[in-house]
Amino acid sequence: MKILVLNGPNLNLLGKREPGIYGSQTLEDIMDAVVTRGKDLGVAVETFQSNEEGTLVTRLQECSGRYDGVILNPAGYTHTSVALRDAVLACDVPCVEVHLSNPHQREEFRHRSFTAGACVGQISGFGGTSYLLALQGLLELLK
Amino acid sequence: MKILVLNGPNLNLLGKREPGIYGSQTLEDIMDAVVTRGKDLGVAVETFQSNEEGTLVTRLQECSGRYDGVILNPAGYTHTSVALRDAVLACDVPCVEVHLSNPHQREEFRHRSFTAGACVGQISGFGGTSYLLALQGLLELLK
Amino acid sequence: MKILVLNGPNLNLLGKREPGIYGSQTLEDIMDAVVTRGKDLGVAVETFQSNEEGTLVTRLQECSGRYDGVILNPAGYTHTSVALRDAVLACDVPCVEVHLSNPHQREEFRHRSFTAGACVGQISGFGGTSYLLALQGLLELLK
Amino acid sequence: MKILVLNGPNLNLLGKREPGIYGSQTLEDIMDAVVTRGKDLGVAVETFQSNEEGTLVTRLQECSGRYDGVILNPAGYTHTSVALRDAVLACDVPCVEVHLSNPHQREEFRHRSFTAGACVGQISGFGGTSYLLALQGLLELLK
Amino acid sequence: MKILVLNGPNLNLLGKREPGIYGSQTLEDIMDAVVTRGKDLGVAVETFQSNEEGTLVTRLQECSGRYDGVILNPAGYTHTSVALRDAVLACDVPCVEVHLSNPHQREEFRHRSFTAGACVGQISGFGGTSYLLALQGLLELLK
Amino acid sequence: MKILVLNGPNLNLLGKREPGIYGSQTLEDIMDAVVTRGKDLGVAVETFQSNEEGTLVTRLQECSGRYDGVILNPAGYTHTSVALRDAVLACDVPCVEVHLSNPHQREEFRHRSFTAGACVGQISGFGGTSYLLALQGLLELLK
Amino acid sequence: MKILVLNGPNLNLLGKREPGIYGSQTLEDIMDAVVTRGKDLGVAVETFQSNEEGTLVTRLQECSGRYDGVILNPAGYTHTSVALRDAVLACDVPCVEVHLSNPHQREEFRHRSFTAGACVGQISGFGGTSYLLALQGLLELLK
Amino acid sequence: MKILVLNGPNLNLLGKREPGIYGSQTLEDIMDAVVTRGKDLGVAVETFQSNEEGTLVTRLQECSGRYDGVILNPAGYTHTSVALRDAVLACDVPCVEVHLSNPHQREEFRHRSFTAGACVGQISGFGGTSYLLALQGLLELLK
Amino acid sequence: MKILVLNGPNLNLLGKREPGIYGSQTLEDIMDAVVTRGKDLGVAVETFQSNEEGTLVTRLQECSGRYDGVILNPAGYTHTSVALRDAVLACDVPCVEVHLSNPHQREEFRHRSFTAGACVGQISGFGGTSYLLALQGLLELLK
Amino acid sequence: MKILVLNGPNLNLLGKREPGIYGSQTLEDIMDAVVTRGKDLGVAVETFQSNEEGTLVTRLQECSGRYDGVILNPAGYTHTSVALRDAVLACDVPCVEVHLSNPHQREEFRHRSFTAGACVGQISGFGGTSYLLALQGLLELLK
Amino acid sequence: MKILVLNGPNLNLLGKREPGIYGSQTLEDIMDAVVTRGKDLGVAVETFQSNEEGTLVTRLQECSGRYDGVILNPAGYTHTSVALRDAVLACDVPCVEVHLSNPHQREEFRHRSFTAGACVGQISGFGGTSYLLALQGLLELLK
Amino acid sequence: MKILVLNGPNLNLLGKREPGIYGSQTLEDIMDAVVTRGKDLGVAVETFQSNEEGTLVTRLQECSGRYDGVILNPAGYTHTSVALRDAVLACDVPCVEVHLSNPHQREEFRHRSFTAGACVGQISGFGGTSYLLALQGLLELLK
Repeated sequence: MKILVLNGPNLNLLGKREPGIYGSQTLEDIMDAVVTRGKDLGVAVETFQSNEEGTLVTRLQECSGRYDGVILNPAGYTHTSVALRDAVLACDVPCVEVHLSNPHQREEFRHRSFTAGACVGQISGFGGTSYLLALQGLLELLK
Repeated sequence: MKILVLNGPNLNLLGKREPGIYGSQTLEDIMDAVVTRGKDLGVAVETFQSNEEGTLVTRLQECSGRYDGVILNPAGYTHTSVALRDAVLACDVPCVEVHLSNPHQREEFRHRSFTAGACVGQISGFGGTSYLLALQGLLELLK
Repeated sequence: MKILVLNGPNLNLLGKREPGIYGSQTLEDIMDAVVTRGKDLGVAVETFQSNEEGTLVTRLQECSGRYDGVILNPAGYTHTSVALRDAVLACDVPCVEVHLSNPHQREEFRHRSFTAGACVGQISGFGGTSYLLALQGLLELLK
Repeated sequence: MKILVLNGPNLNLLGKREPGIYGSQTLEDIMDAVVTRGKDLGVAVETFQSNEEGTLVTRLQECSGRYDGVILNPAGYTHTSVALRDAVLACDVPCVEVHLSNPHQREEFRHRSFTAGACVGQISGFGGTSYLLALQGLLELLK
Repeated sequence: MKILVLNGPNLNLLGKREPGIYGSQTLEDIMDAVVTRGKDLGVAVETFQSNEEGTLVTRLQECSGRYDGVILNPAGYTHTSVALRDAVLACDVPCVEVHLSNPHQREEFRHRSFTAGACVGQISGFGGTSYLLALQGLLELLK
Repeated sequence: MKILVLNGPNLNLLGKREPGIYGSQTLEDIMDAVVTRGKDLGVAVETFQSNEEGTLVTRLQECSGRYDGVILNPAGYTHTSVALRDAVLACDVPCVEVHLSNPHQREEFRHRSFTAGACVGQISGFGGTSYLLALQGLLELLK
Repeated sequence: MKILVLNGPNLNLLGKREPGIYGSQTLEDIMDAVVTRGKDLGVAVETFQSNEEGTLVTRLQECSGRYDGVILNPAGYTHTSVALRDAVLACDVPCVEVHLSNPHQREEFRHRSFTAGACVGQISGFGGTSYLLALQGLLELLK
Repeated sequence: MKILVLNGPNLNLLGKREPGIYGSQTLEDIMDAVVTRGKDLGVAVETFQSNEEGTLVTRLQECSGRYDGVILNPAGYTHTSVALRDAVLACDVPCVEVHLSNPHQREEFRHRSFTAGACVGQISGFGGTSYLLALQGLLELLK
Repeated sequence: MKILVLNGPNLNLLGKREPGIYGSQTLEDIMDAVVTRGKDLGVAVETFQSNEEGTLVTRLQECSGRYDGVILNPAGYTHTSVALRDAVLACDVPCVEVHLSNPHQREEFRHRSFTAGACVGQISGFGGTSYLLALQGLLELLK
Repeated sequence: MKILVLNGPNLNLLGKREPGIYGSQTLEDIMDAVVTRGKDLGVAVETFQSNEEGTLVTRLQECSGRYDGVILNPAGYTHTSVALRDAVLACDVPCVEVHLSNPHQREEFRHRSFTAGACVGQISGFGGTSYLLALQGLLELLK
Repeated sequence: MKILVLNGPNLNLLGKREPGIYGSQTLEDIMDAVVTRGKDLGVAVETFQSNEEGTLVTRLQECSGRYDGVILNPAGYTHTSVALRDAVLACDVPCVEVHLSNPHQREEFRHRSFTAGACVGQISGFGGTSYLLALQGLLELLK
Repeated sequence: MKILVLNGPNLNLLGKREPGIYGSQTLEDIMDAVVTRGKDLGVAVETFQSNEEGTLVTRLQECSGRYDGVILNPAGYTHTSVALRDAVLACDVPCVEVHLSNPHQREEFRHRSFTAGACVGQISGFGGTSYLLALQGLLELLK
């Protein structure tokens, strides 16, 4: 069983960027934890980050037949990208949307998600733990 | 460590009500699974359901000093209750909002949550598993 | 055949409350007329009133298997209650929404109904007669 | 006592048009039933259908002094015609708005009615029976 | 010099229809006054009324080369007709929009005019006198 | 009989300011024409211009008992001043709102008028002639 | 003379709940102060608190003939309850709406009040003193 | 194979009306070209124009069983007619919506189309050529 | 201790202006009552009225160091003036907003207040008594 | 004569992605058909697809002087990209917007197009045939 | 060459008013710096401040022929004054809008500017330096 | 001291693209001028342009520790990119937003800026000079 974790724009800055909102862990720390948890559960986890909307679209498209599930943190593209929504719908692999912070505690424009309606579920507000919960949720769904 | 699971209106009908949207598990099945998982993790889990907005408000108020965390599924009150939002803010205990289905795949008016902004995080779309993930997320936060 | 008439908040004040809008009949007068008409038509009619949103939700939930149809006047909850809408969807019994007055002649916020979309039909503006028409409409549907 | 039933655009297609929404009865079937019911109740019922907004306006204008009440199904003009609303207000005869289907279960733009605020009441969702209920409601009002 | 006065739906009921809003003069009274005033000013005035949106459109189209100006009271179509707006733009004759009552003192939906932006000017609130002022305004413009 | 013509901000620039929209007549030219027309009709016309919202409010307040009617061109304050609307309502003298240009052909925010709902009528789009028509309309109303 | 003070959801937590917004006085402290002030002014003051929308509705209904005035703090229901608005309109006793904090300094959704339009007046932002001012205002009105 | 071309209000003025937007071809020129192109492709093309919303509705209703497809230019009714939308849905014949100009380059209210959602497709901005492309598109669909 | 009462546009007309809404007391009557109440409470009360937005702004600016509190009735500027809001924020003196009538019972545009969010509290609907309550509220706050 | 066909995000998945909406042809199939049709018409057709918004912008910029026209399917970027709109405006080459499906039959957010207002025309709903029609439309325009 | 710097309401309080937002420089300090910078650049700079909307309008009107450019800080009137917008359009002198703070970091209603669309450009967020940059920008434009 | 100038989509076309709006200078001309001005002021200026949203995000991320300030012209992404807003917030370097033209004189959707709220200030409308002013403004801030 193989899972892809797909991270969107600015997540590569984690730990440095606005720690009051996003916490002090780096993306590497978080991804290491997900990979490790995957190993414990007998699942191969691969991770990818890009600041490019189109690159994320392409990566999602390639998931079909190669991964059993996707954990997607679309970051800033959550609120503006119909292309990503279409890519989630197009790849025939279940996706879970995750957020480190709780978008409902932030600006009004962060309350709308184009991608959430195309995903099976959403987990937000647990910092790096959001990814670990998403991994477990995905595995439960895939059984 | 003690956790309260608080369920809102119509969740008592689970398994009978619109199974296409909410699945065929009963609320009892799901609550049993959460209590069991709690035991495995060394946490006492209590559960409660009410169709009354005010009763849910009262229950939330009583959490302070008696529980270490709350898992809240406000169901239909998610989208209409400022009183519940205020109760979450008022009780000094971390709450996690859960939904069985993914509100972003349903009517427009289900995309707004009054309670989410008052909770630490939100988990939706995993059916009964949403509760199990919330339990783990809460425990992680409480460490 | 059994029909439940479910009346929402403030309807117990009928006859005393804003007679210019709601007329001078009491709720008892109107309910008596519905029960009588039911007898004439060979249908047992039970009636219930509550000011509590949750109590109305609970009553709707209990209809399944006990009644053949529901006549629902959600009054003020018409415009604000997703929980009632969900209860109508959850009980597997046809509901008809009634209003004594015509909401389109009143404040803008009374033009939106959360419950109407979950009911089979709507009758408004005929005072107490709205209920009698609803009873006949329901019977016609149930044939 | 004389009642006019006024039917708006596309209702002449009933039975052929979108039967999933509007049922399989033809307009003629429904109008026959209303006339028959009128006879039973000692009321002369005339019926009229037009696809033209202006023709419907003119027909409404002519009701004053000639009919004791009007049953109006404005169909598509419900949501777009201020002229029809003005005609209802202008003719000094009570009108009841009817719909075969329940507009609250359809597109957002069908939730607004220009004519409803000018009518005494509204009945929707009972198929052809909506007209029969309207007839009874009107007679009750005219007593 | 020739002027056409074009009257929209329900104006034929003037004097009978909602006299509290529209006054007690009939349309004939008002049209007679405009024709007479026209004679005094050496202008031939023709008048026309229709309840049909399309008939009004057609009449406007025929104005080019036959009239020097148009006085248009679109009544209920003011707020809903793009077709009339297009007809005003299409006929190469200056139009003045008139209203008997003041639309800004009535329902919100009467505050928007599709036709006003296509007319040279607008006169409202003077009852039948609105037409006489429009006639003078048009003549002034045509000099 | 005495009439006050009250002109709002920037109207003192007429003839110089955006002649493509407002024409090449100066305010003095237009006011002279109104005074002259007044003399012809046996009415004393006084005129006043101010760029100050409050000064216009004060002038309107003083009209009661001193003038028989007011011709008001609120210019830019049309769209933003509740204070002027209140002043029109407060002075017990009929007001007519005039505009040189047609606001419906300009920016969206010029389509809303706070003052129009408080005036008896509105005349717009005839350049300086708007005032002459308003004078006649007022006299007709005062008879 | 008898006055009822009716307190809505979460107000029983006063002093504990978000003291930065609501102050450190308990509801009991504030109610004691109102009762004492009432005694000084020769008025019997009774107080009641409930987290239930329907219970508040019922309490308001019972006021007619038993109290001379009501001081109502609907708390979270202010912004969501048409049922409470209807109850205020239905009981024939003057109500004053009070708030401890100033809703205009908080979230956008707290700027709308369903109940305020049904009350004679509103007092907000003075903490517990809001109730004392409301008491005096009510007495002034009742003279 | 038979195709009907249905033209809405003001299209009869083509060539005369606002040539900057609609070009200098007359409707007759364009219709001749469509008929000719039809002949080349072995299809009988009939054409019809009306300024009346209801007449267009009626014509659409009659298409069932008589034509294999419809090319519809609803002109001004595009943005305001639910009746036409219903007629397109009711006739069981595929329709293609055409526009001479590109509505997205014009006023905001021309960006909404009631009819487009009921048609199989839309072609706009090619002047008279829009019809020729629609004809080919329809034939392709009908194969 | 010194308090300034600042009155906005049209309040100088009180007693004459729309008595159905604002009552029959003059501003002088009300101000006298506030000054007298001030004397009873050992506070010097000064009063000021202006129709000018800028004059009110200037007066507010001058309060710093000269008054201990301000009672502000911005009247029509309540709903339109950001400048007044900024002046309230800029003067380092607590302000209380008062209204004679209850804005929630009037036009929609009177439900928004630019100034309320900058004031400590708001009192509305008690006629002249609103000022007396505001005085007491201010004194309570200043202790 | 040279034409570029520019395809946006996820179109490379055609045939695999949501065939219920987009059909079973692959992008290659459709592009081959356009190239072939181009050859028949004596036009060189080049095709390009990218998931990257910026790459599409760059490709559009390079068209000036190299192509005579562009057929653009912006897919998901249709509804979100001002940058693409600007690129269409910046390249001095006529563009036609195409869509395989009819956006008016899908989610509300697909009804707005940023790019359509910058293109000469739009063709939607004909599946792969949309491109062939666009090619012919473009050639007609370029004559 | 002569430049006028025009300052709107509350700017006279600079240094005292909300220093967290507007900085600690007084308006005099800033104006001195602009005059000095003007001298260095060989330009006469005059400055003016008023809290009155109408006075600012009048000052703008007088600029024509007396100044070569205007630096305008409309402060609170930025978001509410159509009169000022009209004055900028009316005076035939280029204006630059400046703000000390960045309005996009403040309340939603400060994001709209009525005056910006009438100015050649806008500079905001640099404190007193905004004026110096505006001076240089204006001189660059005037060359 | 080092400053980065970051240019968004389509700016590489400057001089060629819509010169009526953007002027005839090329981006190279403008960048040369900024570099030269930087040299005069003792600052090293580097410049970069990309049509890719993600590339701009990446470039902004790399600024921390390498540049002292950023001049950002997000062009079309101004109105649509939350990712760029987040990148500005994430890099701990002050940014100034610049625009060649004045967005307030263009389409409604260009009035909203996602990036402005994350920048220290904004300069627009001065053509290439906007950059020079931004450079000076930045240097002033960095002192």
